[in-house]
Amino acid sequence: MSKESKGERSKKLSSESYKGVRDFYPDDKFLHNYILETMAQTAERFGYVEYGASILENSELYEAKSGEEIVNEQTYTFTDRGDRRVTLRPEMTPTAARMVAKKKRELAFPLRWYSTPNLFRYERPQRGRLREHWQLNVDLFGTSSLEADIEIISVAHAVMEAFGAKEDMFAIHINSRAFMDHVYDFYSLSEEERYTLSKLIDRKNKIEKERFVSDLQNILKDKADLHEVFLRFIGENDFSALPEHCLNHKTKRELDKILQDLESNDIRNAKLDVSIVRGFDYYTDMVFEVFDTSPENNRSLFGGGRYDDLLAIFGEDHLPAVGFGMGDVTLQDFLETHDLLPTTTSPTDLYICVLDKNVYSWAHTTASRLRKEGINVAIDYTNKKAGDQVKTASKLFIPHIICIGEDEVENNTFTL
Amino acid sequence: MSKESKGERSKKLSSESYKGVRDFYPDDKFLHNYILETMAQTAERFGYVEYGASILENSELYEAKSGEEIVNEQTYTFTDRGDRRVTLRPEMTPTAARMVAKKKRELAFPLRWYSTPNLFRYERPQRGRLREHWQLNVDLFGTSSLEADIEIISVAHAVMEAFGAKEDMFAIHINSRAFMDHVYDFYSLSEEERYTLSKLIDRKNKIEKERFVSDLQNILKDKADLHEVFLRFIGENDFSALPEHCLNHKTKRELDKILQDLESNDIRNAKLDVSIVRGFDYYTDMVFEVFDTSPENNRSLFGGGRYDDLLAIFGEDHLPAVGFGMGDVTLQDFLETHDLLPTTTSPTDLYICVLDKNVYSWAHTTASRLRKEGINVAIDYTNKKAGDQVKTASKLFIPHIICIGEDEVENNTFTL
Repeated sequence: MSKESKGERSKKLSSESYKGVRDFYPDDKFLHNYILETMAQTAERFGYVEYGASILENSELYEAKSGEEIVNEQTYTFTDRGDRRVTLRPEMTPTAARMVAKKKRELAFPLRWYSTPNLFRYERPQRGRLREHWQLNVDLFGTSSLEADIEIISVAHAVMEAFGAKEDMFAIHINSRAFMDHVYDFYSLSEEERYTLSKLIDRKNKIEKERFVSDLQNILKDKADLHEVFLRFIGENDFSALPEHCLNHKTKRELDKILQDLESNDIRNAKLDVSIVRGFDYYTDMVFEVFDTSPENNRSLFGGGRYDDLLAIFGEDHLPAVGFGMGDVTLQDFLETHDLLPTTTSPTDLYICVLDKNVYSWAHTTASRLRKEGINVAIDYTNKKAGDQVKTASKLFIPHIICIGEDEVENNTFTL
Repeated sequence: MSKESKGERSKKLSSESYKGVRDFYPDDKFLHNYILETMAQTAERFGYVEYGASILENSELYEAKSGEEIVNEQTYTFTDRGDRRVTLRPEMTPTAARMVAKKKRELAFPLRWYSTPNLFRYERPQRGRLREHWQLNVDLFGTSSLEADIEIISVAHAVMEAFGAKEDMFAIHINSRAFMDHVYDFYSLSEEERYTLSKLIDRKNKIEKERFVSDLQNILKDKADLHEVFLRFIGENDFSALPEHCLNHKTKRELDKILQDLESNDIRNAKLDVSIVRGFDYYTDMVFEVFDTSPENNRSLFGGGRYDDLLAIFGEDHLPAVGFGMGDVTLQDFLETHDLLPTTTSPTDLYICVLDKNVYSWAHTTASRLRKEGINVAIDYTNKKAGDQVKTASKLFIPHIICIGEDEVENNTFTL
């Protein structure tokens, strides 16, 4: 094809990316790598090893758990030419569970796994919510020990610290589904009462107090004697509203032990919060969420919990598991709010500005020698004026520059 | 949802991945990271900086270049609910060109960019060809200097060396589209003759010599006087079959200069090869391919070339560019063939086997102190027998193990 015919055929394409996803120019990629590498390094400090998988998964992996409707509406799902239904993964946990189920007999438990995959969801892009985002996933499989719950929360805390966050910038809110179930059992709440109560808890912070009170009374309309207890317990996060029996129950004592051990590990910004229920169906016991404490950005950053039954969908035995997922977009907002973003630096150590074509071979030899020493070197071949070449290097944040022409090579002296 | 109802609802899902893609268990991920990081490090040695983008691209990006039919047949393309046609990127160069076009006025040229994206193609999976693979992409934008061509080939050579490949394990075959055009012009070949000749060159090594001769004679049936020249030039890669005029042409002298400069940079396994034409439409001048020289795996590993017109599809001016793409699957086959794969190691430095629940707090404190020193530490909470805990650590390739019980903590002595 000749150049002319190419020009004629062109329709002048848009240079915009697909809607709701990001282009990572080198400066953006620098920041993105900083975020993902800091996450990965912290997970490795605690003995976690990296795994990975394709973004393409058979759709049934999500349908089993969440019902077909949700898969269709909130995910990228399509049919391939072999008539298979394929989904771009919206979360990593089902993939991790699938992989563990597949090699359960070969793997050495406890298994400490982490990954920093990209995930997709089909929704209107907005602040903190894009169609594609990355997420640190940290999971500990094969032990139901409370120590595992404590470790997972400690890793979450350590990741925040690794980004330079101080304890007054974020707070860890902890609850337990098993404990909530116990409270509901104790008060003999029906399935419907539990369900509507959970929904109310979930939107508690988004509605006015009066609305909350009337909704609660409406849900518990047959149980007027419980109104005061639940207004204090759920409305005011006041655990002391509950009777001794609940407060001494194993599930509550476990929550207390988690808090106590976190404190003796120097984690002092954790607290119990009855309003933490978490969206995913699969959590079974401890759940937690990390909040930004700044007034202008006061919201949930990420969270996790214990999910001991997820392998059941693969016909495998019960396998205890606890973990969390931390998204890059929300985290980057947090880092911006608290002025914790790093300054861009270049991976290139030295830029050689060449002022004369005759010294290219000298530049090559020198660069080659330096590269063998582990120094990253770029050479400018543009034949632009020295000033312009230096400008290029500064724009790229390259810390060292030398300019060479015939004089420099002859005298063997250079200005760095 | 209670545990019972979950159990009932489960359909016993398959734990297999989607067809033609890979799961990366920690051992696989170790190898994959080794491959991608070695590629990245080598690119950075030459002053390249990383960029990235989403795997989702508007389909028109590929339709403009290659015709709609190819996009449909060989790519994952679907329509989103906003009626946009979306493609999972089959190659990275159009994305890089799109990003450069978008910020052409802000970017500092020459631009040295690399990326290690995953790419998708819809085809029957086979050895060396999966539906998803990763690829190092290295591109130098903004200079038409021959030095840039030489640098790109040098980076390709350096990547192979970084994997431990010796010069006798691979060979770099170089050609030039501009030179081929000149030869065709010189012999006044028609558009159709050029096209069918290119196709013949492409399959030269797959057909028998007799078939090649008869096909060539058939293509040049009106030009019997050229048969001998082309049988030697194309059939035997014998450039001396061409007349002085062609051999002294600028395009041939440039090829010679590339070879000569590579040699003075200590790259001695490059040679001219008339059969290198490369599949993509967008190449304009120098093209090259790297071959495995081992008899049992003698095939093209990867390649690249100069493409100076790709930005035209975005309505932008001509921008010189040269680059290459190197796939992970083919490379891994090469490393296996030549016994160059690394031994798996663990990112975890120390495994603490805990023999008594009472010493957990001691284990936590110790681990915490070591982690602050930059040591990666995992703790075993399984309460299994010491031997089983040690076995777990060995299975994970963790180099150091200590076992602690009450005695050890009391006496403050440990066995490493």
